[in-house]
Amino acid sequence: MAEDGRERLGIVAGGGGLPMIVANAAIEKGMEPVFARFSDGMTNDSIIGRSRAFAWGRTGDAIEWLKAEGVQKLVFCGTISSRPDFRSILPSFKTLKRLPRALRIVKGGDDRLLRNLSRYLESEGFDLLPVQAVAPELLAPEGVLTARTPTAEESAALDLAHRAATALGVLDAGQAVIASNERIIAMEGIEGTRAMMRRVAEYRAARKIGRGERLALVKAVKPGQDRRFDLPSIGVQTIDEAEAAGITAIGVSAGESLILGFDDVIDRANTAGLAVCGLGGEQGTAR
Amino acid sequence: MAEDGRERLGIVAGGGGLPMIVANAAIEKGMEPVFARFSDGMTNDSIIGRSRAFAWGRTGDAIEWLKAEGVQKLVFCGTISSRPDFRSILPSFKTLKRLPRALRIVKGGDDRLLRNLSRYLESEGFDLLPVQAVAPELLAPEGVLTARTPTAEESAALDLAHRAATALGVLDAGQAVIASNERIIAMEGIEGTRAMMRRVAEYRAARKIGRGERLALVKAVKPGQDRRFDLPSIGVQTIDEAEAAGITAIGVSAGESLILGFDDVIDRANTAGLAVCGLGGEQGTAR
Repeated sequence: MAEDGRERLGIVAGGGGLPMIVANAAIEKGMEPVFARFSDGMTNDSIIGRSRAFAWGRTGDAIEWLKAEGVQKLVFCGTISSRPDFRSILPSFKTLKRLPRALRIVKGGDDRLLRNLSRYLESEGFDLLPVQAVAPELLAPEGVLTARTPTAEESAALDLAHRAATALGVLDAGQAVIASNERIIAMEGIEGTRAMMRRVAEYRAARKIGRGERLALVKAVKPGQDRRFDLPSIGVQTIDEAEAAGITAIGVSAGESLILGFDDVIDRANTAGLAVCGLGGEQGTAR
Repeated sequence: MAEDGRERLGIVAGGGGLPMIVANAAIEKGMEPVFARFSDGMTNDSIIGRSRAFAWGRTGDAIEWLKAEGVQKLVFCGTISSRPDFRSILPSFKTLKRLPRALRIVKGGDDRLLRNLSRYLESEGFDLLPVQAVAPELLAPEGVLTARTPTAEESAALDLAHRAATALGVLDAGQAVIASNERIIAMEGIEGTRAMMRRVAEYRAARKIGRGERLALVKAVKPGQDRRFDLPSIGVQTIDEAEAAGITAIGVSAGESLILGFDDVIDRANTAGLAVCGLGGEQGTAR
């Protein structure tokens, strides 16, 4: 609880614009945001307000600080693009005490990492909220969201990419796939959606993609994913990058993916002539 | 049939060293190789003997020439790294006549493309042989092939990568996956194994992969793949590239993948300290 009586929301802030969007939503709901940042430069510089940076692995320090700040509810948001190398971390006493547990936490795919981390934080007395509990307005609605509806070719591409993303999700691999209606072009491993789209732009320049081959990008939650963490998201930059890669349709899983800055994203997509859809779980693509 | 009475084997030659290896195996078996090359520079320059280059789409010309050369048996080998853009091909009369059919052939994922192409060539009276019918000595045997056996961690990584490769294969996506025992690192789309390994080397340089995280590469046939085409293969260069990417174990599907230059590959892997295994179909990794 803050001095002014507002409830404090702890925001574990990775990169990108999401942490500030969530903070603003929290303020609107009468809460005071408190940021635990990463000190390696991943977290957006525009973060303002009560905040402190922690080196990877200084979980102990972060926990003590959040507790001292009166934080009980925590939300995870933003991208985490690198993994800790424990041998390179200067051990702090509080981290050393928890090291074996911390090591177990960071092993495994992203889902396993986050599942372990959430169990650990819950055992420390924190409540982990999903982003959508603080900012439900960010969730992608179902159906076609742009002026332009996907063509039959694009619908087939969205369908193929969605099926592939689901198959990858079962393996706790990436959340994103790029396909045409004929074949799968690229699948996200640990590189992130942005790097994958840059690759696809290169394939196109190298003529590995036919000139008339229309591409779709799908981002979808993994079937077993804890919905409190790392929901797939798109923003204005995603539309820019998609356009540069020659992608003409984008699908996100409806009700489980985030659209950051909805009006701007849809405006930008309309200007670029892209079709953006919220995909239903079972039905696949919106047509 | 050649003038000297030897049977002629038509080799549709893509890039890499495989076409010459197959040609040498054919010569040893008393056949005369005849190469249909691609004129876009994909085919290895070291090809010698009876050969002719054809532009993509000049299927008609290639067929007429092979028939005139007395070829009845055909083998496909080598990598094909780009797809034809039919609008950029100067149409020849013989190609135009067959264009609608040619267009149908090149649509779809690689499997579909090759399935269509093989049906077409069979309808033209050719016999399509698998590489392994000409050079069975290239097939990867089952079990550990190097001096070093995979560690428990590497076995788990091989297992995860193998499961992922199988899941991708069902979708007619890539044949290759790189994983650690904890997570899937990269999956091959249309870029090819070499480009995927270069990416992984970059992830490592960018510290997206932990220093102690041991990586495995698996190349496996797709479940529905026609075994006459595009079998996964590794060569000495694969070992070099794997080493550069920090990969310490390689698995290929036994009896269905090719090892090009077996002794050299295994020597090179032993020098690099890599473990190489032929993976069984159902059992997964060799331990």
